[in-house]
Amino acid sequence: MIKRMSKTFEKLQPYLDKSMALQTARNLFEWDNQTAAPFEAGEYTSKVIGILSDEYMKSLVNDDVRKYLKKLQDKKEQDELTETEKAIIKELAKTYEQLESIPPEEYRAFNELTSISNRAWMKAKKNNNYEDFAPYLKKVIEYKKKFAAYRVKGKQKPYEVLLSDYEECFMIDELDIFFDKVKKEIIPLLQEVGKKAETIDKSYNYLSYDVEQQREFCKYLSGYIGFDFNRGVIAESAHPFTLQLHNHDVRITDRYIENNLESAMFSIIHESGHALYEMNIDDAITQTMVGGGASMGMHESQSRFYENNIARSKEFWEPIYDKLVKAYKTNLATIDLDHFILGINKAAPSLIRTEADELSYCIHILIRYELEKMIFAEEVSVEELSKAWNQKYQEYMGISPSTDTEGILQDTHWSWGEFGYFPSYAIGTAVAAQLYACMMDKMPLSDYLKTGNLTPIRDFLREHIHKFGAVKNTNEILKDVCGEEFNADYYIKYLKNKYTKLYHLS
Amino acid sequence: MIKRMSKTFEKLQPYLDKSMALQTARNLFEWDNQTAAPFEAGEYTSKVIGILSDEYMKSLVNDDVRKYLKKLQDKKEQDELTETEKAIIKELAKTYEQLESIPPEEYRAFNELTSISNRAWMKAKKNNNYEDFAPYLKKVIEYKKKFAAYRVKGKQKPYEVLLSDYEECFMIDELDIFFDKVKKEIIPLLQEVGKKAETIDKSYNYLSYDVEQQREFCKYLSGYIGFDFNRGVIAESAHPFTLQLHNHDVRITDRYIENNLESAMFSIIHESGHALYEMNIDDAITQTMVGGGASMGMHESQSRFYENNIARSKEFWEPIYDKLVKAYKTNLATIDLDHFILGINKAAPSLIRTEADELSYCIHILIRYELEKMIFAEEVSVEELSKAWNQKYQEYMGISPSTDTEGILQDTHWSWGEFGYFPSYAIGTAVAAQLYACMMDKMPLSDYLKTGNLTPIRDFLREHIHKFGAVKNTNEILKDVCGEEFNADYYIKYLKNKYTKLYHLS
Repeated sequence: MIKRMSKTFEKLQPYLDKSMALQTARNLFEWDNQTAAPFEAGEYTSKVIGILSDEYMKSLVNDDVRKYLKKLQDKKEQDELTETEKAIIKELAKTYEQLESIPPEEYRAFNELTSISNRAWMKAKKNNNYEDFAPYLKKVIEYKKKFAAYRVKGKQKPYEVLLSDYEECFMIDELDIFFDKVKKEIIPLLQEVGKKAETIDKSYNYLSYDVEQQREFCKYLSGYIGFDFNRGVIAESAHPFTLQLHNHDVRITDRYIENNLESAMFSIIHESGHALYEMNIDDAITQTMVGGGASMGMHESQSRFYENNIARSKEFWEPIYDKLVKAYKTNLATIDLDHFILGINKAAPSLIRTEADELSYCIHILIRYELEKMIFAEEVSVEELSKAWNQKYQEYMGISPSTDTEGILQDTHWSWGEFGYFPSYAIGTAVAAQLYACMMDKMPLSDYLKTGNLTPIRDFLREHIHKFGAVKNTNEILKDVCGEEFNADYYIKYLKNKYTKLYHLS
Repeated sequence: MIKRMSKTFEKLQPYLDKSMALQTARNLFEWDNQTAAPFEAGEYTSKVIGILSDEYMKSLVNDDVRKYLKKLQDKKEQDELTETEKAIIKELAKTYEQLESIPPEEYRAFNELTSISNRAWMKAKKNNNYEDFAPYLKKVIEYKKKFAAYRVKGKQKPYEVLLSDYEECFMIDELDIFFDKVKKEIIPLLQEVGKKAETIDKSYNYLSYDVEQQREFCKYLSGYIGFDFNRGVIAESAHPFTLQLHNHDVRITDRYIENNLESAMFSIIHESGHALYEMNIDDAITQTMVGGGASMGMHESQSRFYENNIARSKEFWEPIYDKLVKAYKTNLATIDLDHFILGINKAAPSLIRTEADELSYCIHILIRYELEKMIFAEEVSVEELSKAWNQKYQEYMGISPSTDTEGILQDTHWSWGEFGYFPSYAIGTAVAAQLYACMMDKMPLSDYLKTGNLTPIRDFLREHIHKFGAVKNTNEILKDVCGEEFNADYYIKYLKNKYTKLYHLS
C-alpha cells in the first residue's frame, strides 16, 4: 500500500466517498428505471432521484471541498500526491467547475426543461412534426449557450466547452481536420461501395429468428469476447446500453428483434466492449472520480473496436460461424461464411444513424458535427434546422429524408441538451482503427481470432488502456500504447483497405 | 389541499425528505442485491450502502431534527398538526429514539457482526453444526441485550423493547394470553387432525411441474387477487419477499421449485397480500414515515389473509381450478377439486416453519416465542439453546429434529439479531382470522370468491386498512373495522371450524 502523505487529501476523501455513493445510487436508479421499474413508478421515483441529485451536488459544491481543492492544486501540495490522486484532483476541478459555474436554480430549471423537451421530442417524432419540437429545442439550446458562456475561457469557442464534456482532446481545429478527411476520402468511397454492394442478397437477415435463441446466442457472444458474468449481468431494455456501479458490477442490456439477426448480436458485442473497459479498471481506482473510462470518445473506441474491427472480420466468425448456423439452421443453411461476411459489411448511403453500416456511420456524425458547430456559432436558426439537416444529407449522402422522423427527429440527444456528444462517436471509431493497426503490429491478432482465443486481446486492452480508467486522457493513452497521438489516417486507411478488398474495388 | 399551518413542521420537512430518499435508495440496493446484482458485486457495493446508511442516520439524528421534533411534541404545536403529521411525529420520535439510543460506533460494530454472524449461520446450517454458530449468536444476543437496555423504560422488560420494533400493540402479557390459547386449543387439534390427514394422498403435488408454466400461473394468481402490474413487478429470488420504493412501485419475488406445485403458488399469493397493502396506501402519505404498513404484525395479517383464509378455501378455487388443471393436465387430471382442497390443507406436526401448514404454523412460533423470552430473561444460555429447542418441539409437536439444520439452525432471523420478530407472524395470522370473521359478516365474501370477483375484497381492505398506512396501529385498525381490538378467539374458532369441517371431526 502507498502511504497517504497528504493530510488535505485525507480530509477531502469523505466528500469524495459521499459523492461516489450518491452517484452510484443514481446509476442504480437509472438501471432500474430502464430494466425493471413498473410503468407508473416514475413520478414518485423522480422525487427520490431529485433529492439524491441535490445531495450529490451538495457533497461536492461546498466550502470545505472548495478549500481543500484549492489547496491541493498548489504546487507544494501536488508534490505530495500520487499520480492517481493528482488525476482525481484534476477531475474534481473539472467537475467542480461544471457544477459550480451554473446557478443551482438554473440547473434545476434546465433539468425540468429537458425532461419536458424529451417528451415533446418523442411526440413530435411520432407525429413526424419538427415544428412542434422546435420551440423546446430552442429553449434547450438557449440554456446550453448560456451555460457554455459561463464556462468559456480565453479564445475557446462556446461549442468547445460542450465538446470538452465528452472528449477533452479534440476541439474544433482537430475535429475539422478529422472530418475533412472523412469528407474527402469516405464520401466517394461510400458512393463506390454502395453501387457494388447493392447486389448482395441480405434477405436472410430479416427472416424470423426465435428471440429466446437470440438471447442465448448473444450471451454466448458476450462471454466469448470476455464479459465476466460473475461481475456483470445482461438485461433487456428499449435501447441497448452499458452502466456500471463499479468495476465488479457492470451491466449491459440488449434488445431482441425477431426479424433482424444482426441487430441484437452487434449490439451485445458493442455493449460488451464498453463493459470490458469498466470491468478491467483497476481495483485501486474503481469508486473514485477517475474510476470510469477516460472519455466518451475513448469508451466508444472500445465498443467500436469489438463491434467493427473485431466482429465484422472474417477471422472472428471463422471458429464460431458453424455454431451460429446450427442455432438457426432453417434460415442460414444456404448462407456460407463469405456470404455472411459480405452481409454484415453491406454498406450504402443511409438516413438513420443507429442502423448505419460501418462505412456510412461517420458521415452521419459529420453532418451532426457541422450542424452543431453552426448552431453554436449562430449560423443557423432552430427554425431552419430541419431544412439544413436535409440539405446536408443530400450533399454528403446523396439522399435526403422525406420526413423529419427519418431526419432531424431521429436522435434523442438534442432533446436532452446533449450537444458535443456526437463527435465522440466518430472519434471513438477512428481511435479503434488506430488501436487495431497498432495491435496488428504487436500481436498475431488474426491468428488469435481464427483460433477463437480472444483472451490475449482483452488482456492487451486491460493492461494498456482499461486499467488506467480516467487517469490518462485519450491522447496520452494512444501515445503510450501506439507511440503516437491520435492520427485519423489509420481510420481512413482501414476503411479503404477493408472495403477495397471486400468489394474488389480498383 | 390542507393548508400547512405549522412552520416548524415545514422546517423539518427537508430532513424527512432526505431520509426518505436515502431509505428508498437503500431499499433499491436491497432489491437489486436479491434479484439482479452480479455475484462478485457485494464487497464494493457494501461500501456504497454503508455510506448511504451513515447519511440516512445523519439526516435524522442531528441538532436541527432534535430541536424541531421536541418543539413539535409540545401540546401547542401539536394542535397545529394534521392527524397525518401527528402520526409522522410519533413515528419520527420512535425512530429517533431507536437511532439515537445506540452509540454510532456500537451500531456500526453490530452491523459488521451480524453480517459475519449471518455467514457463520449459513455455514453452520450447511454443516449441521450449531456449536460453530453459537459463539456468534452469543455476541449478537449480547449486543441486543445492551441495545434493549439503552431503551428500556419503567417496568418494561428488555424483550418487550425488541417486540415493540415489530408490533407495538402486543407485549409479553398479551402474547402470553394469546399463546396460552394456542397451546390449549391448537396443540390437541393438530394431533387429532394429523392422524386423520395421514391418509390424504398428496403425491400429485411433488410431480414435475414446468417452471415456465408455474411462472405464468403464479403471475395470473397475483393479478387475480388484485396485484397491479402497472405499479409493481414480480422477479425471482432465493427466498420470496416483498419490497416497496413507494405506493407506485411495489415489488415481489417468488421461487419456483419443479417438484412442488404449491410452493410458488402460495408464496406468490402471500407476497401479493403484502404488495396490495403497500400499493393501496394513500398517495398523500406514501414517501412519508407513515407511508408503509402499520406494523410487521399488521402486514403479515394481509399476506396471511390472502394465503390462508382466502386461497386455502374451496370457494377461492371453484372458479379457477379448471384453469390450474388445464395448465398441468397430465399431473392433475385425476385430482378433483375436493381432493386438491384437502391437499392444500393437509396438516400435521412438522419440524420446518417455512414449510408448515396453516394449523401447525403457530406452534412453530410459540416455540420461538418461548425461547426468545427465556433468552432475554436470562433463563437459558446460548449453549443450551439447541437442546431447549428440541425439547420444546418434542413437547408441543410430539416430534423432535434429529439435526440442528432441521432444528435451531433453520431460520435466518437470529443470525441478523432479529429477536422479537417471530411473534408478529403469529399475531398477523390471528389478526387475519379476526378480519376474515368480520368481513364474512359485512359482505357476501363466499359469493365473491365463488364468482371470481375479488375486487370488493381488495377494496374493503384498502378503504379500512391499507390506505391509512401507519397512521393507525393494529388495535386502532381492528377497533375501527371490526368494532373490537385484537381477540385471539376468532383465530382459534376459525381453525377449529375449518379443520373440524374438512376432516369431519366430532
